[in-house]
Amino acid sequence: MNSIYNGNITLSIFGESHGEAVGIVIDGLPPGMELDMESIREEMDRRKPGTSKLATPRQEDDQVQLISGFFEGRTTGAPLCGIIFSKDTKSKDYSELKVKMRPGHSDYSGAVHYRGFNDYRGGGHFSGRLTAPLVFAGAVAKEYLKNYGVEIGAHLKQVHSVEDISFNDLDKHIKTIVYQELLQSLRGMRVPVLRASVGEEIEKVIIDAKSEGDSVGAIIECMAVGVKAGLGSPFFNSLESKIASLAFSVPGVKGISFGAGFGFADMKGSEANDPYFIEEGVVSLKSNNNGGIIGGISVGSPIVFSVVMKPTPSISKKQETINIETNENTELEIVGRHDACIAIRGIPVIEGILAIALLDAYLEDKKWD
Amino acid sequence: MNSIYNGNITLSIFGESHGEAVGIVIDGLPPGMELDMESIREEMDRRKPGTSKLATPRQEDDQVQLISGFFEGRTTGAPLCGIIFSKDTKSKDYSELKVKMRPGHSDYSGAVHYRGFNDYRGGGHFSGRLTAPLVFAGAVAKEYLKNYGVEIGAHLKQVHSVEDISFNDLDKHIKTIVYQELLQSLRGMRVPVLRASVGEEIEKVIIDAKSEGDSVGAIIECMAVGVKAGLGSPFFNSLESKIASLAFSVPGVKGISFGAGFGFADMKGSEANDPYFIEEGVVSLKSNNNGGIIGGISVGSPIVFSVVMKPTPSISKKQETINIETNENTELEIVGRHDACIAIRGIPVIEGILAIALLDAYLEDKKWD
Amino acid sequence: MNSIYNGNITLSIFGESHGEAVGIVIDGLPPGMELDMESIREEMDRRKPGTSKLATPRQEDDQVQLISGFFEGRTTGAPLCGIIFSKDTKSKDYSELKVKMRPGHSDYSGAVHYRGFNDYRGGGHFSGRLTAPLVFAGAVAKEYLKNYGVEIGAHLKQVHSVEDISFNDLDKHIKTIVYQELLQSLRGMRVPVLRASVGEEIEKVIIDAKSEGDSVGAIIECMAVGVKAGLGSPFFNSLESKIASLAFSVPGVKGISFGAGFGFADMKGSEANDPYFIEEGVVSLKSNNNGGIIGGISVGSPIVFSVVMKPTPSISKKQETINIETNENTELEIVGRHDACIAIRGIPVIEGILAIALLDAYLEDKKWD
Amino acid sequence: MNSIYNGNITLSIFGESHGEAVGIVIDGLPPGMELDMESIREEMDRRKPGTSKLATPRQEDDQVQLISGFFEGRTTGAPLCGIIFSKDTKSKDYSELKVKMRPGHSDYSGAVHYRGFNDYRGGGHFSGRLTAPLVFAGAVAKEYLKNYGVEIGAHLKQVHSVEDISFNDLDKHIKTIVYQELLQSLRGMRVPVLRASVGEEIEKVIIDAKSEGDSVGAIIECMAVGVKAGLGSPFFNSLESKIASLAFSVPGVKGISFGAGFGFADMKGSEANDPYFIEEGVVSLKSNNNGGIIGGISVGSPIVFSVVMKPTPSISKKQETINIETNENTELEIVGRHDACIAIRGIPVIEGILAIALLDAYLEDKKWD
Repeated sequence: MNSIYNGNITLSIFGESHGEAVGIVIDGLPPGMELDMESIREEMDRRKPGTSKLATPRQEDDQVQLISGFFEGRTTGAPLCGIIFSKDTKSKDYSELKVKMRPGHSDYSGAVHYRGFNDYRGGGHFSGRLTAPLVFAGAVAKEYLKNYGVEIGAHLKQVHSVEDISFNDLDKHIKTIVYQELLQSLRGMRVPVLRASVGEEIEKVIIDAKSEGDSVGAIIECMAVGVKAGLGSPFFNSLESKIASLAFSVPGVKGISFGAGFGFADMKGSEANDPYFIEEGVVSLKSNNNGGIIGGISVGSPIVFSVVMKPTPSISKKQETINIETNENTELEIVGRHDACIAIRGIPVIEGILAIALLDAYLEDKKWD
Repeated sequence: MNSIYNGNITLSIFGESHGEAVGIVIDGLPPGMELDMESIREEMDRRKPGTSKLATPRQEDDQVQLISGFFEGRTTGAPLCGIIFSKDTKSKDYSELKVKMRPGHSDYSGAVHYRGFNDYRGGGHFSGRLTAPLVFAGAVAKEYLKNYGVEIGAHLKQVHSVEDISFNDLDKHIKTIVYQELLQSLRGMRVPVLRASVGEEIEKVIIDAKSEGDSVGAIIECMAVGVKAGLGSPFFNSLESKIASLAFSVPGVKGISFGAGFGFADMKGSEANDPYFIEEGVVSLKSNNNGGIIGGISVGSPIVFSVVMKPTPSISKKQETINIETNENTELEIVGRHDACIAIRGIPVIEGILAIALLDAYLEDKKWD
Repeated sequence: MNSIYNGNITLSIFGESHGEAVGIVIDGLPPGMELDMESIREEMDRRKPGTSKLATPRQEDDQVQLISGFFEGRTTGAPLCGIIFSKDTKSKDYSELKVKMRPGHSDYSGAVHYRGFNDYRGGGHFSGRLTAPLVFAGAVAKEYLKNYGVEIGAHLKQVHSVEDISFNDLDKHIKTIVYQELLQSLRGMRVPVLRASVGEEIEKVIIDAKSEGDSVGAIIECMAVGVKAGLGSPFFNSLESKIASLAFSVPGVKGISFGAGFGFADMKGSEANDPYFIEEGVVSLKSNNNGGIIGGISVGSPIVFSVVMKPTPSISKKQETINIETNENTELEIVGRHDACIAIRGIPVIEGILAIALLDAYLEDKKWD
Repeated sequence: MNSIYNGNITLSIFGESHGEAVGIVIDGLPPGMELDMESIREEMDRRKPGTSKLATPRQEDDQVQLISGFFEGRTTGAPLCGIIFSKDTKSKDYSELKVKMRPGHSDYSGAVHYRGFNDYRGGGHFSGRLTAPLVFAGAVAKEYLKNYGVEIGAHLKQVHSVEDISFNDLDKHIKTIVYQELLQSLRGMRVPVLRASVGEEIEKVIIDAKSEGDSVGAIIECMAVGVKAGLGSPFFNSLESKIASLAFSVPGVKGISFGAGFGFADMKGSEANDPYFIEEGVVSLKSNNNGGIIGGISVGSPIVFSVVMKPTPSISKKQETINIETNENTELEIVGRHDACIAIRGIPVIEGILAIALLDAYLEDKKWD
């Protein structure tokens, strides 16, 4: 398989950066879901390019056209196909990129994988542009989750040397409702962070990198509150496996960890274990080192995970590389429109993949009802 | 789905900690593979309990009985079923563990997921004992990969406060053949590390934790050398998605990262990008920040990833928890046989899941030949 | 994939005719199902060999040993593994069958598929013996369906030249409850038929064939009553696709048709269409030409389908064939223990696969609740 | 799952009869396949409506627009998305069909399945129009199979009372090359039959039915020659399971049988078994009762199967039915554009699904190379 996500819903993604369109077929959505087109529009806008000096100037309105599965304002239960036609594809000369492999990009591995027949223009099927349909699918999944009181949000935990605090550092006694407000407020920020002060520092670091023709890496921390206990599975279909598998679908993601994550290495069991307590019949955990998932299954605490996104490999600095036609070493200077910190536009993508994983898990859970 | 891995091979795992047996059905293995039963025996021994003071004293010989799919010394191509009958299941009183939820364990999330019908004895289906069939599957996968010159190994990059160096810190000019020797030598160590000196420190830290009735977390770094370029897919079936999905099947794993991993956050594109070069017609990369995978597809460099394993939640220290029968807060002291650092026995498991992912990717790659 | 059924439950079947055991892992079963071991025992007995002069004398008690997923009398929700150890495997000389391909058997196609490494003893993995785990899975599925008022039964519609009537020929006004009695009464018959008179004729035709060293084909017609409307899907996962896909898993099945089946060819739309009517708020159909499924989805009428099973290819008459070692034409006389009409023991298998398909469909339907 | 075919290629079909478009995503196609757009165009034309007095007058040019996965005249290996925009959707009043269930159609079962949210206009997602993307996928699969010397064709074995002979009735000694010519000649016929004389009779029967406002059923027999031995699997992924599963995806198909099919019921093993023989090192079978598949695996003989398609349920005669809004019995006269014998346009669809199944099986077979 290639570009298929196969769970209790199926996603089939298609398109290339400089092709006519990118799109997705979402199969298995419950019939009768009202889709708030305004909310979906907002999600698409959060990811779309050309909106700020922090992002690539490529102009795309990322309007999703619903081709099927939607009738009289609701999902029908049949496959929902959403297509985003491309507007601003530069018909420039790609002959250099066909033979000179951009370091850090999939040009070389993709050419080997596809036996040299890949559409190499702008990264082709590997392009970050393919995350637009992912955000659309995520937006649809969020519509489903709303009915279960699930809210999803994310912030930049780190951009280059600038660090924000973690969700788990916030007062542990914040109640669910407050978390939901927090997550919503993050949506409104140009640079979503928990400690307001680091926002400006992050902007500065990104603009500096951009002015150097360079880029910076980052960590996104994502949270879902209101998720019921019992979702997921042990082993291969653990909730962590589902989320991770989707996270590594996002170009540039190189790591994922749940809760305390790699910090667990330096902990003892007596610190790491999250104690249970019960209050008025409601089971809770006193800490959330496990990020809301134990044994692959949700425990009712917020789902918390972090992903690291590597610096955009497209930089304008001169780089060493190879020419696969002449089989010679060469140099490359990439000219084009790029993001100096892809993680900013990555936030709704990461939220989206969490929403997809949770939609899948909620549907699965119902089978045993 | 529950305990099924569905790729170009299918794994169906079954069993409970204190049931009659644990086992696995491996479907899709090429016919005619000779299985070196001695090598498989060795892999099983690396994981089995009761062999050192660093591990649980539970005595199991972990002998795999081949029920099907194996004939005249070779795989037949039909499903290979391997079963490990249990020997040392203590028929003790589990009534306390049925109602008192062990913190950090899947007792509570599992009880909710399985609607209270889970086999709670010793963790039931969630038990680390289920990693024995995973190691078996991994050993079989390694047999396949041998034919393609792929070698897999791992070391402890960190145990509590003690840190080893990373594979990527080794001299970048080490040739493939030397890596293979290195990986083989790691197999012979009781505490596999790259810098010999940290081995003893790690032992000490583990034994100290054990004597306190506590446990420690760790990071395992795993490598495969000799992997051809072009394996994997973009998006949902990326090589990283496959490996991550399998890694989070292993009880206790809470994070995974490839190559420079979370270190990417603090890097610039100009540092992070791995430059290509060509020498006598062979394409190589000057660094391996990407851990051998770009765009979800192998580039021909060693596959390198790290997983963090949380401290074993089974500790003998008194812990706060709940009784789900009486709905009251209570305390718990776990008595039993446990590993103070599960990561040591986890090494062959993590190697095994990498082998499974690569076997899957090699089979997939052939479809287009 | 090989021997995996992947739906809302997953079946992983394994074993060979003359191996140590055959078995199945059923994954995705709801937790908390009480399994009536007596009913399961009865289902196994209906298929097991050695019980009548109409069947092979091979002696197997077909006792299913539950290895996992079953605790305190109920399913746990974790994978249920059932194993049937073989008793009466003749350690005879198979060297002739290794090289002489039995006509009508999978010997040749299997040898090519498995590149010559298949276990050729007694048909190996292709053996009808592998239907024992299918019957077990079907029996478990029936336990689930009982809770929804679904009853399944089957009869021999034709054996060689002897024809029974069809379910659809019975009085159309029989109420559900009567159908259920009918289906139950069929279970008690040695040769299950609707018109009692044909039972003896069928026995005679089978015994005659046996005495000639020959075998006969047959049609089994199977029915499920009490199935709710709305189950299934259009296209690739239609209820008919699911049932057909499972039916062709049963060795010897060469055709399947629903309702009027191939009789539709000679009908006009005005005859074929099943008119709807409503009575006291309940929707029904005046006829059942569609066999209870329209557009791939159940309509609430009984599910009715027929499968044809070819005559057992194992006959003792001399046959022309090839020797794949010497690459010469040759002759073959099969000596062994065989069924002259495999369809009799096939009845619980066909019922079983219908039960599995319906269990899958019921689980799927819940996702949208 | 809904409308997903998941094998070694994945098909994701979408669209509704009166929606903007219907389409398909084909994932897993080998890169570098040249697509003969002229051949694909021809295949689409064979199915498209409005071309003869035997078919519905709805005017659609069924032009497939390739949205992705196709670059410089070849497949890239990334998902191939083909979309067919609709032209001639009548914006008529569908309010009657929303509440009055057409007998024989999926209106009622679909409404229950989709909880009343289905797009009911013209059958919505259940429409025969969705077979256009199937024919496209089939055409692409045929392009792949050409490279392996596989040729596919079909004829009408029966239309109402008029019967053609079967492929298996043709001289058994016809060589492969002649079969290929035969199959190609069938493509050129308006009413493809083996005995030329029955063509006219069939036309008459269809036109008569049409003039009565009625429709007729039919049997299509389909063949593939040049298929290598060894393709398929025992059990759930048998070649027969794959083909059957796809065949029942085609609206109106109610039965499928391989080779002698239901005729096996009346045969003895000694007649049914296909004897092997070897000539100049090539293994062949003296007869083809098994339709080229034994034990779920191809034997190297032509693949032969028959499907029955029920009479189009859309007839203009008055029919009894129900109104699901008022819960009353009522009558219905369907006005619209329909086929009196859908099987004629069904021929390229059935050929297409065979091509898809074989493409899948060829890809799978390579995994073990």
